[in-house]
Amino acid sequence: MFYHVKELQYRAKPERPDPLFAKQLQEILGGQFGEISVALQYLFQGWNVRGNGKYKDLLMDTGAEELAHIEMLATMIARLLDGAPVGDLEVAAKDPVIGAILGGMNPQHAIVSGLGAMPVDSVGNRWTASYIGASGNLLADFRANLNAESQGRLQAVRLYEATTDRGVKDMLSWLIARDTMHQNQWLAAIYELEAKENVVVPSTFPRELEKQEVSHVLFNYSRGNESATGRWANGPSIDGNGMFSYVENPVPHGKIPVLKPAPPYIHDTLP
Amino acid sequence: MFYHVKELQYRAKPERPDPLFAKQLQEILGGQFGEISVALQYLFQGWNVRGNGKYKDLLMDTGAEELAHIEMLATMIARLLDGAPVGDLEVAAKDPVIGAILGGMNPQHAIVSGLGAMPVDSVGNRWTASYIGASGNLLADFRANLNAESQGRLQAVRLYEATTDRGVKDMLSWLIARDTMHQNQWLAAIYELEAKENVVVPSTFPRELEKQEVSHVLFNYSRGNESATGRWANGPSIDGNGMFSYVENPVPHGKIPVLKPAPPYIHDTLP
Amino acid sequence: MFYHVKELQYRAKPERPDPLFAKQLQEILGGQFGEISVALQYLFQGWNVRGNGKYKDLLMDTGAEELAHIEMLATMIARLLDGAPVGDLEVAAKDPVIGAILGGMNPQHAIVSGLGAMPVDSVGNRWTASYIGASGNLLADFRANLNAESQGRLQAVRLYEATTDRGVKDMLSWLIARDTMHQNQWLAAIYELEAKENVVVPSTFPRELEKQEVSHVLFNYSRGNESATGRWANGPSIDGNGMFSYVENPVPHGKIPVLKPAPPYIHDTLP
Amino acid sequence: MFYHVKELQYRAKPERPDPLFAKQLQEILGGQFGEISVALQYLFQGWNVRGNGKYKDLLMDTGAEELAHIEMLATMIARLLDGAPVGDLEVAAKDPVIGAILGGMNPQHAIVSGLGAMPVDSVGNRWTASYIGASGNLLADFRANLNAESQGRLQAVRLYEATTDRGVKDMLSWLIARDTMHQNQWLAAIYELEAKENVVVPSTFPRELEKQEVSHVLFNYSRGNESATGRWANGPSIDGNGMFSYVENPVPHGKIPVLKPAPPYIHDTLP
Amino acid sequence: MFYHVKELQYRAKPERPDPLFAKQLQEILGGQFGEISVALQYLFQGWNVRGNGKYKDLLMDTGAEELAHIEMLATMIARLLDGAPVGDLEVAAKDPVIGAILGGMNPQHAIVSGLGAMPVDSVGNRWTASYIGASGNLLADFRANLNAESQGRLQAVRLYEATTDRGVKDMLSWLIARDTMHQNQWLAAIYELEAKENVVVPSTFPRELEKQEVSHVLFNYSRGNESATGRWANGPSIDGNGMFSYVENPVPHGKIPVLKPAPPYIHDTLP
Amino acid sequence: MFYHVKELQYRAKPERPDPLFAKQLQEILGGQFGEISVALQYLFQGWNVRGNGKYKDLLMDTGAEELAHIEMLATMIARLLDGAPVGDLEVAAKDPVIGAILGGMNPQHAIVSGLGAMPVDSVGNRWTASYIGASGNLLADFRANLNAESQGRLQAVRLYEATTDRGVKDMLSWLIARDTMHQNQWLAAIYELEAKENVVVPSTFPRELEKQEVSHVLFNYSRGNESATGRWANGPSIDGNGMFSYVENPVPHGKIPVLKPAPPYIHDTLP
Ligand SMILES: [Ca+2]
Ligand SMILES: [Ca+2]
Ligand SMILES: [Ca+2]
Ligand SMILES: [Ca+2]
Ligand SMILES: [Ca+2]
Ligand SMILES: [Ca+2]
Repeated sequence: MFYHVKELQYRAKPERPDPLFAKQLQEILGGQFGEISVALQYLFQGWNVRGNGKYKDLLMDTGAEELAHIEMLATMIARLLDGAPVGDLEVAAKDPVIGAILGGMNPQHAIVSGLGAMPVDSVGNRWTASYIGASGNLLADFRANLNAESQGRLQAVRLYEATTDRGVKDMLSWLIARDTMHQNQWLAAIYELEAKENVVVPSTFPRELEKQEVSHVLFNYSRGNESATGRWANGPSIDGNGMFSYVENPVPHGKIPVLKPAPPYIHDTLP
Repeated sequence: MFYHVKELQYRAKPERPDPLFAKQLQEILGGQFGEISVALQYLFQGWNVRGNGKYKDLLMDTGAEELAHIEMLATMIARLLDGAPVGDLEVAAKDPVIGAILGGMNPQHAIVSGLGAMPVDSVGNRWTASYIGASGNLLADFRANLNAESQGRLQAVRLYEATTDRGVKDMLSWLIARDTMHQNQWLAAIYELEAKENVVVPSTFPRELEKQEVSHVLFNYSRGNESATGRWANGPSIDGNGMFSYVENPVPHGKIPVLKPAPPYIHDTLP
Repeated sequence: MFYHVKELQYRAKPERPDPLFAKQLQEILGGQFGEISVALQYLFQGWNVRGNGKYKDLLMDTGAEELAHIEMLATMIARLLDGAPVGDLEVAAKDPVIGAILGGMNPQHAIVSGLGAMPVDSVGNRWTASYIGASGNLLADFRANLNAESQGRLQAVRLYEATTDRGVKDMLSWLIARDTMHQNQWLAAIYELEAKENVVVPSTFPRELEKQEVSHVLFNYSRGNESATGRWANGPSIDGNGMFSYVENPVPHGKIPVLKPAPPYIHDTLP
Repeated sequence: MFYHVKELQYRAKPERPDPLFAKQLQEILGGQFGEISVALQYLFQGWNVRGNGKYKDLLMDTGAEELAHIEMLATMIARLLDGAPVGDLEVAAKDPVIGAILGGMNPQHAIVSGLGAMPVDSVGNRWTASYIGASGNLLADFRANLNAESQGRLQAVRLYEATTDRGVKDMLSWLIARDTMHQNQWLAAIYELEAKENVVVPSTFPRELEKQEVSHVLFNYSRGNESATGRWANGPSIDGNGMFSYVENPVPHGKIPVLKPAPPYIHDTLP
Repeated sequence: MFYHVKELQYRAKPERPDPLFAKQLQEILGGQFGEISVALQYLFQGWNVRGNGKYKDLLMDTGAEELAHIEMLATMIARLLDGAPVGDLEVAAKDPVIGAILGGMNPQHAIVSGLGAMPVDSVGNRWTASYIGASGNLLADFRANLNAESQGRLQAVRLYEATTDRGVKDMLSWLIARDTMHQNQWLAAIYELEAKENVVVPSTFPRELEKQEVSHVLFNYSRGNESATGRWANGPSIDGNGMFSYVENPVPHGKIPVLKPAPPYIHDTLP
Repeated sequence: MFYHVKELQYRAKPERPDPLFAKQLQEILGGQFGEISVALQYLFQGWNVRGNGKYKDLLMDTGAEELAHIEMLATMIARLLDGAPVGDLEVAAKDPVIGAILGGMNPQHAIVSGLGAMPVDSVGNRWTASYIGASGNLLADFRANLNAESQGRLQAVRLYEATTDRGVKDMLSWLIARDTMHQNQWLAAIYELEAKENVVVPSTFPRELEKQEVSHVLFNYSRGNESATGRWANGPSIDGNGMFSYVENPVPHGKIPVLKPAPPYIHDTLP
């Protein structure tokens, strides 16, 4: 169950409106690695935890925080849109700044949301649950989380570079710090699980059931041997179960498949 | 540039048709973490590499391999669909197996693809590029790859458990082994980059520009202190830049936001 | 900012597992009018409110509650999936119940989420923000909310009819009651705004700027006059600004449009 | 069955081309609440009506009209695109108007549709049936329709404000008037059904089967009591079945859920 | 502008309900090549025609007809859903037909649409405008139309094979005949345009601006020479502008690309 | 199985960066008819071929080539993005070119992909498998392919017109030539199959099972007889099985459908 307070986790006030930056900032609200994605990803992972109370609590702690981040970004975007212009390009073009705004802002910020934030990314794609996952296997999922926080912090940093507004930078420096913590925490949880299980997910599948002869082999399918010099092609495998090797000229292990004709009621092309 | 040979990387021949399993197997062909996802993710990452020839080659080697895995799964699915029945349920229901097949198979395997594999997941969602990413930051992207291989191997293992067909199991044990290698290789690449940079992505953002006072703090937003006992709340942070701490009763750092009224031409509700 | 407690708003415990009903119940979690939709719709509307504190509070109160409903449904679905079978149809078909389960359950509940709830509807479509909206005009948005609660309660009632599990019915009777309240509350808010403004949204557009001669006219574009007898074709209009009328044989008010040829660099068909 | 005449319902001729406005105008053609949405929503509702001839006719009358509105907008957009420029930005930037057009217009209007309208919204999202619904319950559906006409008229009004082109304004003033009628007509139909049934959808579910103790209660899940003063928290409920009440400090009615471990063949994290 | 009559173009009455076939029949209503696709594709092509009155009329004639086909299918599906069961699987499984129905029907037909047709395909994907197109170049578009009618007729034929219901077969034999006509008519229009222009779209691009040395060459990128024996590798090219040739061992014509490093504010991996 | 070489099929080097053109060029990489679409469409068709080795080889030859085209476009786009600016509009607007770039480029090219190509179209829609198909019937599928190559070449030509960069034009003139070949080759294959079967797909459905009385009739559903003069309304039908005819005033062949009421457990509107 959730309780809301109206104070923000951290302030979200720009120095001045900037409808184009409002559009760009949508990326970390409603984009693939935005706050909606991490909020719902952590909450679903938390709800689906079967046992493992420590991890469940961590997921719910962080999921609830990400809801607060959606809120901060929504507030910031609404303020960046304060008084956004509408109007004819012919008229506007006399002022090149207004011309660029009219041409470059997200038109839905005026027409659809009435100067409010939207659950979309920086080009206007609606948020989709295709971005997220919860598998029931926590090592797999914490890797998903580490990835999301890595991509998300990278995007926040790029947005930080793209503005001179001190209010926006102030808020982003908070979000970037939180992403630092979240990368740290998922790493800590990952190391713990990797130590207990193994680095290969899922660790519970009997090794003898996989074709172990190709479990540590790099096949060279792109001509050029630059990859042969990497750690992944030399020495003991990371999972401790074998030695890495490199196959310079990989050949097929299967035959040319020939499919049976379809039955007549399918009306495929006749053979 | 790509060259194709018609031999499969590994054989893909079931003992007998099984249209329901064909539907399920689509998950690792065209699902969120299926072979289309990893193939296109690695290829786009590879094409976008700016410098870093060793990593680029590794990405292209593996991207090309994943194309071969799509091919193996497509072949297997077509064979699992050999002679799939169509027909009236009334008639079919006399044989409960046929009744279950007609009710449970993906109807598009008959109506749309004519007993062929489709770029869809196990419930029929069309594959979408919303599943994948390439950020230009390789540590971020290798984490995306590690996640994809972890989720993908987990799904392949679950499918292995769900069938008794020895031909299907044979092929899955190959794919599972390759996922073992791919987890290993991305881990190796990640460790190398983490050692060179730092574990926090991106490593190039000056630390003093983030709010470092909250860079290593766990806020307890879900009542209950189970998460306080984890590594992520105690001791030095993983990034080596601070000490983890825990805030049991986090309070807001911002105020209640009040937004300005919209201009009249927006026709929002009057205040 | 949000705080979470782990207790559920109301209990969510079925009498027994039922993987097929788990699939169906996803509709009101992750479907078009499911709990994710109302939660995010109310929260975005609340965050975007410019002034109007009373409505903002109501939106945030209700948005936070809907998050608790997602949680209840996620919990119920995980329990309905407890021990869901996997396996060969040939084997399973000896037991027609298991055969129907294997054919009829959502395969992603086993392969993808590991027996957990997903942000999807009852056929497996991923939740999308295309379902929701927040326009900045509260009368418009409260109508969106009333619609969502009407559709949502209808679906919950249909699901109530489809199960004999007393635990599931118990939880649904809670959710149905809350939908009763939510329909009531949006109606109350709508009546208040309609009384203050007008029933036509937006009320701030000057009436003389619309073609008032067709503002209260029903055109008969589908042959048959059944609709001519309705309230909408007779008597004073609901908005109090005119009289309803009916045009039995509507004719075009515009001409046949003829478009100019495209310029050569567009390479359209030559005229 | 449908018959088409080539005359437009109302004229759709701008004073001059304006490729940026063409992009914006797409919102009410192919956006969430655009004409494709209402056309298909009304037609599907009409086709699915079981009995209720008066409502069916009204739905078909209006659905057919909305097809005519798609046609008007498609015509207007094609004309706004007449002779839209293509070309290098370097060259174009010498004329700031052309620069803003090239940067701001929808590039698919040139590359994909060859200066024609598209089934997309103002940022280029393809229309999706996720926008619409038909439930078989007409009170629910008429509320969906009232919402669509409210959002749609709001968007049309915002677009009216954003142009000085008298031809565009002329057409929009027609569409806005028709939205006035459509809001009126759905309101009339809603009042009729509410009077016959009850305001709560569906009215056919026995009240004693829901948890009536929470059917008229507002829970304060967002700190602050602004919402306590509203009509929705005081006096008789709108449905006439109870009295509104307000719970300032709501507590959970359920326990902390603990899920059973998954079976081994699911390969979740071990407890 | 459109007029509707309530009579169907052709009757749509099954002998008996069949909820599973209702689900399958959705494919040709709301699938990729279903009636919604062809209706909207032809109408958008028609509205965007610039000149060419004969083709415009043909497009509008056919687009209006496809609307009537949506209507027939919606009617048929509603009737196939008459009295569809809901209920517990445990209970239902005593009757294997009911068990298969409950497991195999589209659950949204009960929960969402209340036994009505939906704008979805046979697995429940919502219709999307990503299926359709209108380019302004009629030869291109008529080829799109010919493809749609070919795929659509194929699907209708497969559905015809899958039922023994004489009412369903009766309606399908009408739709199949109309698809015969529509393939014929688009072929006639294509031949006319090909004769006037050339078979290569667009015909207006000066031939000397393309690399003509590879305009008629088949590169053998998939090992094996089966394709070398085809008409496409021998003799005069179809467009009359060259001779087909075959390159057995194609080599790259470009170099290995090396991309410049990204600027620091992008925070890509350091080289 | 696939092998990759790092040399490009043809060079992909612009004279100078142009972030706006990078955005536009995405259309033929990740749009509806872009290279991802044709690559995956041909590969899936090829993998699903049941027999017919000549066609299978042709599909695999061409599918592999299209992968090389994705690669060329990805390379070109990355180079067009070299050093793309980020920054404040206020600052940028002093230089109208930079202002237009910031307003007009795809913001995800900076924030998300770090100056790399993305699997999206020119407005940022993610690529989706809804664009493609493989039916098992090769005549149907080759028509799909001919359509894709026609639309794709048209788009490439329009992009050629929109740039003065000689490097971009050089690469496009290669791709346009390849599209010329691909249209030629699918035409050759189509003619071969049409000669062997018949022009109507599928040719294997017994003609007497369709309503042949309407197999060659054009119904005039859009008032105006322009279409009556076309080849499709006069003379022998293209399939050689009848004579085209024209019905000026088509009437319904079915009755007004009346649907049965829904059962009570569906809670539709009461009749
Ligand atoms: Ca290599
Ligand atoms: Ca906690
Ligand atoms: Ca009528
Ligand atoms: Ca409150
Ligand atoms: Ca070959
Ligand atoms: Ca006509």
